[in-house]
Amino acid sequence: MSVNVVVWGENVHEQTNQVVAELYPEGMHACIAGALNEVDGISATTATLQEDEHGLPAERLMQTDVLIWWGHAAHGDVADAVVDRIADQVWGGMGLILLHSAHFSKIFKKLMGTPCSLTWREAGERERLWVTSRQHPIARGLPDHFELEQEEMYGEPFAVPEPLETVFIGWFPGGEVFRSGLTYRRGAGNIFYFQPGHETYPTYHDANVRKVIANAVKWAANPETRLADVHAAPNRVVGEALEPIEERGAKLHADGDDGFR
Amino acid sequence: MSVNVVVWGENVHEQTNQVVAELYPEGMHACIAGALNEVDGISATTATLQEDEHGLPAERLMQTDVLIWWGHAAHGDVADAVVDRIADQVWGGMGLILLHSAHFSKIFKKLMGTPCSLTWREAGERERLWVTSRQHPIARGLPDHFELEQEEMYGEPFAVPEPLETVFIGWFPGGEVFRSGLTYRRGAGNIFYFQPGHETYPTYHDANVRKVIANAVKWAANPETRLADVHAAPNRVVGEALEPIEERGAKLHADGDDGFR
Amino acid sequence: MSVNVVVWGENVHEQTNQVVAELYPEGMHACIAGALNEVDGISATTATLQEDEHGLPAERLMQTDVLIWWGHAAHGDVADAVVDRIADQVWGGMGLILLHSAHFSKIFKKLMGTPCSLTWREAGERERLWVTSRQHPIARGLPDHFELEQEEMYGEPFAVPEPLETVFIGWFPGGEVFRSGLTYRRGAGNIFYFQPGHETYPTYHDANVRKVIANAVKWAANPETRLADVHAAPNRVVGEALEPIEERGAKLHADGDDGFR
Amino acid sequence: MSVNVVVWGENVHEQTNQVVAELYPEGMHACIAGALNEVDGISATTATLQEDEHGLPAERLMQTDVLIWWGHAAHGDVADAVVDRIADQVWGGMGLILLHSAHFSKIFKKLMGTPCSLTWREAGERERLWVTSRQHPIARGLPDHFELEQEEMYGEPFAVPEPLETVFIGWFPGGEVFRSGLTYRRGAGNIFYFQPGHETYPTYHDANVRKVIANAVKWAANPETRLADVHAAPNRVVGEALEPIEERGAKLHADGDDGFR
Repeated sequence: MSVNVVVWGENVHEQTNQVVAELYPEGMHACIAGALNEVDGISATTATLQEDEHGLPAERLMQTDVLIWWGHAAHGDVADAVVDRIADQVWGGMGLILLHSAHFSKIFKKLMGTPCSLTWREAGERERLWVTSRQHPIARGLPDHFELEQEEMYGEPFAVPEPLETVFIGWFPGGEVFRSGLTYRRGAGNIFYFQPGHETYPTYHDANVRKVIANAVKWAANPETRLADVHAAPNRVVGEALEPIEERGAKLHADGDDGFR
Repeated sequence: MSVNVVVWGENVHEQTNQVVAELYPEGMHACIAGALNEVDGISATTATLQEDEHGLPAERLMQTDVLIWWGHAAHGDVADAVVDRIADQVWGGMGLILLHSAHFSKIFKKLMGTPCSLTWREAGERERLWVTSRQHPIARGLPDHFELEQEEMYGEPFAVPEPLETVFIGWFPGGEVFRSGLTYRRGAGNIFYFQPGHETYPTYHDANVRKVIANAVKWAANPETRLADVHAAPNRVVGEALEPIEERGAKLHADGDDGFR
Repeated sequence: MSVNVVVWGENVHEQTNQVVAELYPEGMHACIAGALNEVDGISATTATLQEDEHGLPAERLMQTDVLIWWGHAAHGDVADAVVDRIADQVWGGMGLILLHSAHFSKIFKKLMGTPCSLTWREAGERERLWVTSRQHPIARGLPDHFELEQEEMYGEPFAVPEPLETVFIGWFPGGEVFRSGLTYRRGAGNIFYFQPGHETYPTYHDANVRKVIANAVKWAANPETRLADVHAAPNRVVGEALEPIEERGAKLHADGDDGFR
Repeated sequence: MSVNVVVWGENVHEQTNQVVAELYPEGMHACIAGALNEVDGISATTATLQEDEHGLPAERLMQTDVLIWWGHAAHGDVADAVVDRIADQVWGGMGLILLHSAHFSKIFKKLMGTPCSLTWREAGERERLWVTSRQHPIARGLPDHFELEQEEMYGEPFAVPEPLETVFIGWFPGGEVFRSGLTYRRGAGNIFYFQPGHETYPTYHDANVRKVIANAVKWAANPETRLADVHAAPNRVVGEALEPIEERGAKLHADGDDGFR
């Protein structure tokens, strides 16, 4: 059984910027999905901002093992209802991979609980990514570092929570560093943030970047049944307690109440 | 210099429920603030839902070192603008302590990025809290465990991110356990969730609970200057790079642009 | 390709205690290995204290994907050279699962860097284990809690480092709680501590316990190439620097030196 | 009451290398202690390898709030008994700060449970340290980055466990990065590793480095009573259980036994 991936792209600069259009004639999302479809055990499709419900109706998300997100110019155009829907699926077990400028996406900020801000410079610098967690599943098959001839500089401080694991740190010739690969878990969902991917550079054509994303897909996929009840807060009534207890004291709720929210 | 604390209470059941009114005639917030004002180095005031801006105008929050939050029946009545304002201050360095049913408050869910759901039972069970991080500042002066004669059962699974530290785990006679004391850091703000405090029981009159809250206030207070720019994502232009670099490749932005959000 | 597991047992009480001998006539290690061999994709063998090199020569460990460790009465009899050899393999990527009284094994203490002490009581209490990380790979296929009719009580405080993840917390009728399932990573090795398994009870015949151990084996296995050079601290000489630099200042070492240890 | 600090130096290259002797005529330990003694609320003394018991008898450690460790050429000459004694005090609540080449000290490796290896180059490169956790107590009063005109390059991968927090990341002109400031907690002891401090450069005369070390001292000090019983594993006998239970099943131990180790 293969891992079902949806690669979401906002698909804006591909339509409006000549350089981006030439690098990614079918869109960055299609480029990434194409790379994934070359990998055994992964089956990838795409969705974009412009589609109905941004291409992410609930039924589709429920059958998505891992969602990949690339957005930049149009974060504000993503409907809150879709963001909430994605969060529910992540909490229920869907994997989520956020690429580059998705650090400022609504969904990443919602799941991190922080501003997710950073410093940046668009100068086509050569980035060198160091593996900081040797033999991590996401770094599988990589050398101890690899380089991208041109990337946007993203610099610390990166306003995110302490990660579960730091997998990559990026070095930039202009003098900055960045935690470029970070893992998180939110509910039953595995989350990976990966910094490379400025749209005016050919990052998603790079073999190492493609390997990282494929590795991350396999790492993020949670084969367990998707949870449907992530917001449930069940009342465990006295009569069904696991150990015999007697009710004491004043109560605000009747047995089986939903509780306050 | 003392730590400035604001104890926020939704102040609903104190006005509508006889039992709660008798336990906390001036409100739970006033009881907690009173306890804190007995501690050297802490200066506590209160705020409630019913006040203008819920008693939390921006200027007040900017001068608050630690905000304590108790809410239950009226989570939905808290204005989003106030929630956002609190988050900004936490990211900038304000400490935040969330008590009991505040697990479902807007501000906790926003900062955690998870549903924060749990199981529960209102049966006046005796809870026993175990210290899992010996000599942690928040457990200062406590024995290895302490008991509350009556508490609401909160049970696992508790849908929160892995904490920085687990300080307390609660035992309930009905057979459940709960991670009752958890620390987090979000931006420059220290966050502590503490489970005891159902309003129909005298929890905030308990000496150990009061000690935990006072300890947590001192732990959460960040004496550094409050950050005002938590959302800033400054463009580090080529001409001011820390190391000499040359600009290469296509650009989307002019120097000094704000970037996309 | 299946995951190669070695189940190590000290095999002492099986030989000296009638109750244990009857519960585990071929040894606890054989019971556990037998359970694992019923699982698709796992191939388990055993090793014991009494064998030459405790059954763990270097070549065998190098081909072991996951080592499972059960020890109790004879921690002190395990040769330091074997402990060091195991640590090297864990750092290089071998998974390690520590069961019950292995909390005081030399290898666990070495990898944790803490005393690993706890409180305990041998009274055949019914333990209830709660899943605290829903849909975690190690909790795959389990209900939200499960019970063992008889277990040794292990209680907090458990002197271990903050884990990567808390997967299970145990409840005991005598009033204690325990972090019964904890994950760590040390070097490239995944580590799982799991508390149940006192030798006078039939714990390793329990279906849920067997499921947890099988899940943990699959979680812990790192398919990447085993690292052989975990202690290497290579000198990156100036002439081979990734960016052009000039040597400046006084030096203690000639190029290519090993450095101090 | 001031924080009692002991700065330990191996004091080898100060005696044998002209450059080091001129930079630190009274020893690196004395330079660091002198810097700390200029700070309100800190009282620092020194100890060296050459003293009896390396200057660290048990009574002195028991009264030490924070131990600072600098070692390089003579890690192997440190007596194991002293290392064990230090670990016991850390687990009991003593703070520990490890500087630079102390990454390979016996005490750091013992507390981390990993090889603590890294890559290195001795070329007097200018290091730039970035603050990755804004307003962290250890970064108090620092700008978002600071530079050291000459430092030894330490590069990733750094074989340590995931830290509690990453406070600094270092940038090197030769192309490497390093997690230069990491926090841990082991037992009741706070631990900080800080990378700068090669002995042939004037690092400990640098104002920012001195500020970091002073901040770290205040962060690491645990004012709670030092634990004396870190290895205790008390038997909680049935007759004294917190909840009424009946003993069942076979036993290996009599009440009050020490248990196996």
